[in-house]
Amino acid sequence: MKSIHGVLPPIPTAFDTDGKLNETAQRANLARWLETDLHGFVVLGSNGEYALLNTEEKMRALELAREMIPQDRLLIAGTGADSTRQAIDLTKRAAEIGADAALIVTPHYYRGQMNAATWTLHYRALADASPIPILIYNVPALTSVEIDADTVIALAQHPNIKGIKDSSANVAKMGEIIRFAPPDFAVLVGSGAAIVPALSIGAKGVVPALGNIAPRECVAIYDAFCAGDFHAARNLQLRMIRPNAAVTSKWGVPGLKAALDELGYYGGSPRAPLLSLGETERVKLREILREAELLR
Amino acid sequence: MKSIHGVLPPIPTAFDTDGKLNETAQRANLARWLETDLHGFVVLGSNGEYALLNTEEKMRALELAREMIPQDRLLIAGTGADSTRQAIDLTKRAAEIGADAALIVTPHYYRGQMNAATWTLHYRALADASPIPILIYNVPALTSVEIDADTVIALAQHPNIKGIKDSSANVAKMGEIIRFAPPDFAVLVGSGAAIVPALSIGAKGVVPALGNIAPRECVAIYDAFCAGDFHAARNLQLRMIRPNAAVTSKWGVPGLKAALDELGYYGGSPRAPLLSLGETERVKLREILREAELLR
Amino acid sequence: MKSIHGVLPPIPTAFDTDGKLNETAQRANLARWLETDLHGFVVLGSNGEYALLNTEEKMRALELAREMIPQDRLLIAGTGADSTRQAIDLTKRAAEIGADAALIVTPHYYRGQMNAATWTLHYRALADASPIPILIYNVPALTSVEIDADTVIALAQHPNIKGIKDSSANVAKMGEIIRFAPPDFAVLVGSGAAIVPALSIGAKGVVPALGNIAPRECVAIYDAFCAGDFHAARNLQLRMIRPNAAVTSKWGVPGLKAALDELGYYGGSPRAPLLSLGETERVKLREILREAELLR
Amino acid sequence: MKSIHGVLPPIPTAFDTDGKLNETAQRANLARWLETDLHGFVVLGSNGEYALLNTEEKMRALELAREMIPQDRLLIAGTGADSTRQAIDLTKRAAEIGADAALIVTPHYYRGQMNAATWTLHYRALADASPIPILIYNVPALTSVEIDADTVIALAQHPNIKGIKDSSANVAKMGEIIRFAPPDFAVLVGSGAAIVPALSIGAKGVVPALGNIAPRECVAIYDAFCAGDFHAARNLQLRMIRPNAAVTSKWGVPGLKAALDELGYYGGSPRAPLLSLGETERVKLREILREAELLR
Repeated sequence: MKSIHGVLPPIPTAFDTDGKLNETAQRANLARWLETDLHGFVVLGSNGEYALLNTEEKMRALELAREMIPQDRLLIAGTGADSTRQAIDLTKRAAEIGADAALIVTPHYYRGQMNAATWTLHYRALADASPIPILIYNVPALTSVEIDADTVIALAQHPNIKGIKDSSANVAKMGEIIRFAPPDFAVLVGSGAAIVPALSIGAKGVVPALGNIAPRECVAIYDAFCAGDFHAARNLQLRMIRPNAAVTSKWGVPGLKAALDELGYYGGSPRAPLLSLGETERVKLREILREAELLR
Repeated sequence: MKSIHGVLPPIPTAFDTDGKLNETAQRANLARWLETDLHGFVVLGSNGEYALLNTEEKMRALELAREMIPQDRLLIAGTGADSTRQAIDLTKRAAEIGADAALIVTPHYYRGQMNAATWTLHYRALADASPIPILIYNVPALTSVEIDADTVIALAQHPNIKGIKDSSANVAKMGEIIRFAPPDFAVLVGSGAAIVPALSIGAKGVVPALGNIAPRECVAIYDAFCAGDFHAARNLQLRMIRPNAAVTSKWGVPGLKAALDELGYYGGSPRAPLLSLGETERVKLREILREAELLR
Repeated sequence: MKSIHGVLPPIPTAFDTDGKLNETAQRANLARWLETDLHGFVVLGSNGEYALLNTEEKMRALELAREMIPQDRLLIAGTGADSTRQAIDLTKRAAEIGADAALIVTPHYYRGQMNAATWTLHYRALADASPIPILIYNVPALTSVEIDADTVIALAQHPNIKGIKDSSANVAKMGEIIRFAPPDFAVLVGSGAAIVPALSIGAKGVVPALGNIAPRECVAIYDAFCAGDFHAARNLQLRMIRPNAAVTSKWGVPGLKAALDELGYYGGSPRAPLLSLGETERVKLREILREAELLR
Repeated sequence: MKSIHGVLPPIPTAFDTDGKLNETAQRANLARWLETDLHGFVVLGSNGEYALLNTEEKMRALELAREMIPQDRLLIAGTGADSTRQAIDLTKRAAEIGADAALIVTPHYYRGQMNAATWTLHYRALADASPIPILIYNVPALTSVEIDADTVIALAQHPNIKGIKDSSANVAKMGEIIRFAPPDFAVLVGSGAAIVPALSIGAKGVVPALGNIAPRECVAIYDAFCAGDFHAARNLQLRMIRPNAAVTSKWGVPGLKAALDELGYYGGSPRAPLLSLGETERVKLREILREAELLR
């Protein structure tokens, strides 16, 4: 099994103006990200608009990514679903395509019934059935549910559950998991604004939307921290907070795609009902990117 | 177009012990519900575990329902999705199968971007493309988003958007829509505990999970209210509040399926990760059903 | 003990431009409300800005109200506090001044510890110590906590706990309390948009901010409903929904005070940090009042 | 003005069994905390049950604290209130007693009206009127409101607004404030589980309930971090996460008081309606304290 660590951005899915997967654009973006030292990629994460893709499109996006991403970098596939059997099916197919691990969002639609028992059932069934390691994906900003530390720590005992991406940037919860889960269980923070705080308590990596628009900066924060150059890590981290918010909490996927456009990547439109960022917001976005020295 | 009114329960989907659609059981339940005066049925609602079915299974559930449900009763299909194109595709297929209307849950996964603009885009696109009328489905207890009255009132101007199911039982919002939407726009309340309050301000019907376990009582409340027998409507309504909670807010789909089992319908298991109701809860459930005179 | 029923608006507290209690204005408003058939008044409710008054000011507001309000109309005093001993102290003083009942907001600041046990302790201690009946006040929009039906039903067994004001307009919860609490336990709905729905399931009255700006309309809804003129009650209710929102969920106390100004009462400024309604909002407010035929 | 930094626990208020302020116990606790290198104390914070004290009791608690706390350690007084005039009054009195700064909770009861405009009004009025520096206190777990980074950054320009205690441990927000507020504006994290993450992005100190039961450990984390002994800081931080939760999110003030009892301080009972920790929870609490090596 490959080590799960480092900077692993959740890449967007490129669409044509008519809403079809734009493979040329997707390859071009990947090629450019691969010029950097990013440790790997999450494909079909929330930023990949997985919730707006059908199964066929999901598999095509994975195939294309695996073609481009060399074996020495991680390809993590987002193959979660509200239904356990559907998540298992997607995960097996992702494994066949060559994904290195599966990132499984907490089931959430039937919120009132989601708890330690149902999540344990879901993740254990997946871990038993999956040929590749399972990572738990906690993202309360989208799911409105939050898996607790005790359940994660218990699940971490399963030999095929190897980590968690926590997008809530809850440092207390991440810290509790780090202290009580097995040492090789990988805690990854889901926010590019919390790379330094998360590493400071023992997280192994980060899955930042920010990594798509600032891959070199994210890697530099990670490398500086690991090298003990704490001052450099902090200053770069602080500079990245506003751009991170712009492509996440503030403007979401539309903000991410607009920022990619501004920076010479292919951004394009998100899928309906998501709307492209408006012109007023784009002006503010450019200011934010300039202040952070991402755009000149 | 058929009038959308009355008691329209969102029926559950029957599964075998191995999780496959149990068509025999589904037919048997429908046959029994059809012995009552229920005005129609919602197939593939949240209680139908739509979020746990794949597309093929959804279509099969609709076909089977249309075979059983005569043309003088409504078949409303739950064909919403987070993606507009996917919702349109499902809706067109449901129309081909013979559904009378489509119930479209508010897109919600990308919560931060869901607002008047994105919902308007979604519902207008659907209404333009759909051969059958569109009903908006607002269920904040599951989606964590809530479509506002102004947006609903604006959407109600579209000739093919004909109603809303509001599961939040927010009487102020329902009242505002009733006052300002066109007179034929059908406000349906999504809670069996709020039939009388909703009718009292002009709602046209109800989509109650309760209707699956107490179809005669729900119809009796509706009929008594319409006949002006206010006292009878209220007393029966008050008696139904705890059983309603048991199959919704308290125990959800597992509670509904357990209650069906208790009452001689086919309940069976929900799909994983949903778990069957535990024995302790079943004891309490039976007490609730007895106190409400649904179980003897 | 006086019967607790009917339309009982939570009156605002009039302040001078320098933020002092304006007794002349307060008397003038009360005199005008007393010209109508309102059944009584809540003094020191949330609309009375109780949270912004010191103890001395609270007592003065009660004295002044009791001087004006004849004994055949209810004076209900808002004397809740996060501390049980403080709530008891305020309630005893209100009783001495002549309040007919005390409306006790659920303690809420220490949210994580607020539950059936702490609320039961609080309300029983108050009911034991208070010379006047205790009414529970549930207002989750302000407190972010919600007392459950079971706890209310248990508390309703206490001979000195005589009712609940439920501002959440949760008809299912109100219905459950009505069914299982003693028959003389008064359920009052806290929203002027839900008078008809609440009465339709057995509520005994309403405590509407709307009653301050539309006292005759609120009484007319109540009277029409009680007289069985259901059609008139509904139509007037629907007309009152937007003005009700304007003085509650939409613009709060600033909206209420602005509406009073528009309608010839004394509104004046709320206390800091609350700000007076802006001019843009006032224009919209006038439109709402005109559409509802409250302003000509 | 004294520098605001370091470990500044929000001390509890000691009560007798009859609920009166226990001055002897309060002094004894303070004497013991003063044997450590704690940089100062917050008196009348949420952990001090400020919301359950009347004005006279608040002033007495401050007087007693100032008598005990030497001038070279900070005494920060919690003097916030929902009313601006009341907060100003309390703050002036605290200044007279010798408090070094005032910690002002965001007004929150009228939640719908709390926003950049009302908070700006509140804090500027306080800062203008107060003889001592103002610290903003953001504690959404209790207030259900959250002041945004932009408003804090704008308020930080006022010469008498000198810092913020952020109990939400939102590292992204703290980071944004650190980057854009004046360099002497003190960001203090309100959680003992987030000392290292907060310091890692430039926070100046911490206000941890944990500091009451583990003062030496909290100071050791702070000192190790400042000395660049990153490894030691992290390990001790991770060990403190569960005890921190026990006295905050898990069991609140009752948990804190029970832990003090266990550790030989005076804990005693919280004020009603808060209840003392039950025996079952105490057993779990002792396990947590032992695992963290706070109890032997």
